[in-house]
Amino acid sequence: MERVSQSLFPYLLRLADDRLVLGHRLSEWCGHAPILEEDIALANIALDLIGQANLLLKLAAETEGKGRTEDDLAYFRDAIDYRNVQMVELPKGDFAFTIIRQFLFDAFSYHVLEELQRSSHKELAGIAAKGFKEVRYHVRHSSEWVLRLGDGTAESHDRAQKSLNDLMRFTGEMFEADDIDREMLAAGIGADLESIRPKWETIVRDVLSRATLTIPDDPPAMTGGRRGRHTESLGHMLSEMQIVARSHPGAEW
Amino acid sequence: MERVSQSLFPYLLRLADDRLVLGHRLSEWCGHAPILEEDIALANIALDLIGQANLLLKLAAETEGKGRTEDDLAYFRDAIDYRNVQMVELPKGDFAFTIIRQFLFDAFSYHVLEELQRSSHKELAGIAAKGFKEVRYHVRHSSEWVLRLGDGTAESHDRAQKSLNDLMRFTGEMFEADDIDREMLAAGIGADLESIRPKWETIVRDVLSRATLTIPDDPPAMTGGRRGRHTESLGHMLSEMQIVARSHPGAEW
Repeated sequence: MERVSQSLFPYLLRLADDRLVLGHRLSEWCGHAPILEEDIALANIALDLIGQANLLLKLAAETEGKGRTEDDLAYFRDAIDYRNVQMVELPKGDFAFTIIRQFLFDAFSYHVLEELQRSSHKELAGIAAKGFKEVRYHVRHSSEWVLRLGDGTAESHDRAQKSLNDLMRFTGEMFEADDIDREMLAAGIGADLESIRPKWETIVRDVLSRATLTIPDDPPAMTGGRRGRHTESLGHMLSEMQIVARSHPGAEW
Repeated sequence: MERVSQSLFPYLLRLADDRLVLGHRLSEWCGHAPILEEDIALANIALDLIGQANLLLKLAAETEGKGRTEDDLAYFRDAIDYRNVQMVELPKGDFAFTIIRQFLFDAFSYHVLEELQRSSHKELAGIAAKGFKEVRYHVRHSSEWVLRLGDGTAESHDRAQKSLNDLMRFTGEMFEADDIDREMLAAGIGADLESIRPKWETIVRDVLSRATLTIPDDPPAMTGGRRGRHTESLGHMLSEMQIVARSHPGAEW
């Protein structure tokens, strides 16, 4: 039981950090999307993700029981203590890159949150249920854009294909299960990454083929984010994100 | 009647541009607020403002009847064609500056939208009714923060007071009525800025005095935004905001 509660904290961090980092990457589009309505849509999705992260970090902080708050976890951890997959930390790139990444993650998050709604951990199940309602919209939105880009103009197709070529090797990391995942699964708390993988592949293949995009057969080479190994982009992003909070530590404003 | 319809287009632009520009200034906090929940709150308020602007620009484009869309109006007008008051275009400054400005604008927008709900122009009345629900929350949020900052630590008080000193001379512009305003008012379409001013002053005095902040007695010197005269900050902000849309003109993505 103690082992379970020790694994729960890093497990929640993984869930939270994927969403916090991707939410911030997405929020970088604020005021820069090519269409006013899309500006609003992306910002809404970013808000959902940061909101999910906020709830997960609050639960993680309570689980840890060392008096840290969700703000401490968001603003006072360095990159090496972040547990997100590397895919979500890559710079936002062009609009096609943002959309392809979002779709690849949304399709994953959809299945993870769908399962976590039935978690034996009641608070986590509640957060997942709220998040699942949101991700159902996200995955619809991003897959519609994948179709528009892939099956659109020659330029939008090329940009989408290039983004997919760059991103595919990062996707394997989402499904890497280690002892923490296995303990959470055995305790009825966590999601079964192994069974989610084929479901994810089915959605991804279906949408990409309808978008006339070709899945590159690169091996899923990138790994290490769950253990704190990150690209240098994460450090840059965090220093931007954390500067205000860190320059006024403990400020009540 | 023709004169009314000619004034309606610039009148809608004024309403839209105040909200579009302030919404973008606010969205610059995305990922940089001092507290995770405040990050989410500011982004939500930014979204509301950009959403209101989107509806108003759509209506303005229809009113103009020259085939332009709301995206054309947002992304392909230069600063000289923007009709917002200068206050909303000033750089975001520190958190205190952002909050004080937001409060000064929210208190104004609250009364404007409250009146416009009864506009004889049905579409405008509908947009105002939706916006009024939102601004009721905004003004509560910003006035609570004004109280926390003003009546908080010595540093937060000083920052809030300094921001107020810098901003007060920009507030008179919100109430400047010209022929366009008078025509819209006479036609039962627009809001009565003259009657709104004392209501705005009552809220502002009440909140600022409870926040132990002192209203500077500077004359309201700044003016010209409604006629396209802007600070250089607007040009910088627009070039950032418009670059993606302008570098792919007509792209369907």
